[in-house]
Amino acid sequence: MEKWWKKVVNELQPLSLESMQEAEEVLKQKLKPVGSLGKLEEIAIRLAGIYGLPFPEINQKAIVMMAADHGIYEEGFNRYPQEITRQLVELGDKGLIGVSVLARFAGARLVIVDVGIKEEVQGKGIIKRKVRPGTANIAQGPAMSREDLFQALKAGYEVTSALIREGVQVFGMGEVGLCNTATSAAVLSAFAGCSPEEVVGSGSDGTRDARLRALKVKAVEKALAVNRPNPEDPLDVLAKVGGLEIAALVGCCFAAAHARKAVVLDGFIAGVAALAATRINPLLREYLLPSHLSAEKGAGLVLDALGMEPMLLMKMRLGEGTGAALAFPLLDAALKVYQEMGSFADL
Amino acid sequence: MEKWWKKVVNELQPLSLESMQEAEEVLKQKLKPVGSLGKLEEIAIRLAGIYGLPFPEINQKAIVMMAADHGIYEEGFNRYPQEITRQLVELGDKGLIGVSVLARFAGARLVIVDVGIKEEVQGKGIIKRKVRPGTANIAQGPAMSREDLFQALKAGYEVTSALIREGVQVFGMGEVGLCNTATSAAVLSAFAGCSPEEVVGSGSDGTRDARLRALKVKAVEKALAVNRPNPEDPLDVLAKVGGLEIAALVGCCFAAAHARKAVVLDGFIAGVAALAATRINPLLREYLLPSHLSAEKGAGLVLDALGMEPMLLMKMRLGEGTGAALAFPLLDAALKVYQEMGSFADL
Repeated sequence: MEKWWKKVVNELQPLSLESMQEAEEVLKQKLKPVGSLGKLEEIAIRLAGIYGLPFPEINQKAIVMMAADHGIYEEGFNRYPQEITRQLVELGDKGLIGVSVLARFAGARLVIVDVGIKEEVQGKGIIKRKVRPGTANIAQGPAMSREDLFQALKAGYEVTSALIREGVQVFGMGEVGLCNTATSAAVLSAFAGCSPEEVVGSGSDGTRDARLRALKVKAVEKALAVNRPNPEDPLDVLAKVGGLEIAALVGCCFAAAHARKAVVLDGFIAGVAALAATRINPLLREYLLPSHLSAEKGAGLVLDALGMEPMLLMKMRLGEGTGAALAFPLLDAALKVYQEMGSFADL
Repeated sequence: MEKWWKKVVNELQPLSLESMQEAEEVLKQKLKPVGSLGKLEEIAIRLAGIYGLPFPEINQKAIVMMAADHGIYEEGFNRYPQEITRQLVELGDKGLIGVSVLARFAGARLVIVDVGIKEEVQGKGIIKRKVRPGTANIAQGPAMSREDLFQALKAGYEVTSALIREGVQVFGMGEVGLCNTATSAAVLSAFAGCSPEEVVGSGSDGTRDARLRALKVKAVEKALAVNRPNPEDPLDVLAKVGGLEIAALVGCCFAAAHARKAVVLDGFIAGVAALAATRINPLLREYLLPSHLSAEKGAGLVLDALGMEPMLLMKMRLGEGTGAALAFPLLDAALKVYQEMGSFADL
């Protein structure tokens, strides 16, 4: 394992119990029955622990949208042209896609990173960290080499670390990449030991075309059979059946956690990346907050595997970081309750 | 039935199908698979139908928090002093309670109305529409006379209508009133035909004291046995086992719907009021949007009875309108997607 990565993974700190206890005491004094604000209280306590401050303030937010293509597209189960990955990224750069709107709504920056789009991408705001022009077809062999994997992890890590230096205090996970629900299904199957049949959904497309779905299930089955990823070795799983944007999101999670910043999940693909990150170091889980339950079939299984319950039930299946953006206001609300609500001393 | 009320109930209009179809067409052109933003799309379409405009703008928001006391307090299952109703309202007037903070967070006014607090209330911002100082004990007889019921309905209707004249465009339902989870359980039992055992929870208190809960179940059973509310006559149910704040919220729903404004539910008690309103006129349901699934036991049953699914899973059980406030940003997000997202024409 590369030295810098080993250091990042092993230097992760647990949350500050002291700050969490202090936050819990403050919340107990608020003008309400203990615990009656449910997850708003849990979030406030968790954020205190993550930031190591009894009263964290989180103003600067970013959605990091990692983009890459997937060789498994060749298997023919996706009815869209593959260039949509590039198009979405370029439209995102112009502020026009779903997550552009929702990031603005949440007061967050949208940071778009090309870690492996097949085509050349135009757009002055897009960060260029292309490791390779898409993964290889996992139905026929490994997605990428270990070296490529480390480049993708590093891209995520470095982009995120740079944002932290610029003052970003909380991250939302986002992604774009045609066929990445298939790739994610393969990764989830490997980690959670479930069959492709259980975790393959219809993707953001949402069509219930039985023939296409059967092709997709078969492609994921082949990917697992051909590559035999080892669930005990998360990097093996990522390199063999993962994606470049998924690996970059793993790097993003570690950079954020390493700097004691919270990371908000998005839907199925971001959740799978988060799951991979927690398999690399279980401590990482404490830095993650769930957002919504995606309508994608495997989304609930990912959250179960992470031991998390969603905060939002919106039947969304667009990805991009749209769910993460929608959850940011809930973090704001939790901190506001904590900071502004009266206490029994006001009686 | 009083004439003004009959008029309000019968003049309710269905949503504008034309505006909804127009909104749906606009959303179909957005840069995403159709329906992939799930409930955000459903909300945008619904709001178009409610406001009768293909592109509604909703800027001015209010949480209307109706406050009243309940005679069933005498049955002894609540371990808090009854004066807490008054105290919460007075603290709310000072901006210190949970919904004060969350209404500010959501950019909404908090409007507090005394429709039946037992004690005299101090607070310059509190709207005084006290019908009577609390209901009678429903375990021994009806909560209120039909005349009182109409006064409470009217209070809710008039306060809401005045806010609409001031420019408020969307309403969140809120309430305060010791023991109103018991009253609401009785109303829900009457409408949904379920047993008190199924719907009585622990209230915002959240203690799992088996003795107190048994007392509460027994009190609700007595209320139903003594009053025999007729589920075919929603006003009979409200007068016999309802509460003054519940009735006022029913009035609020009708005033909003009558003026084609949306109403966002809160948790268990607000949900029960909404259910009563839809039993009075089923058209009203179309003007209602759910918010969260409260942790109060009967909350899921209320949403089931309304045929709604929550947008937020926050394990909250504070009431006051806190869940409604937390859902307001989701409406904002839905309208932003609709207004700002690019379309296929941008490709």
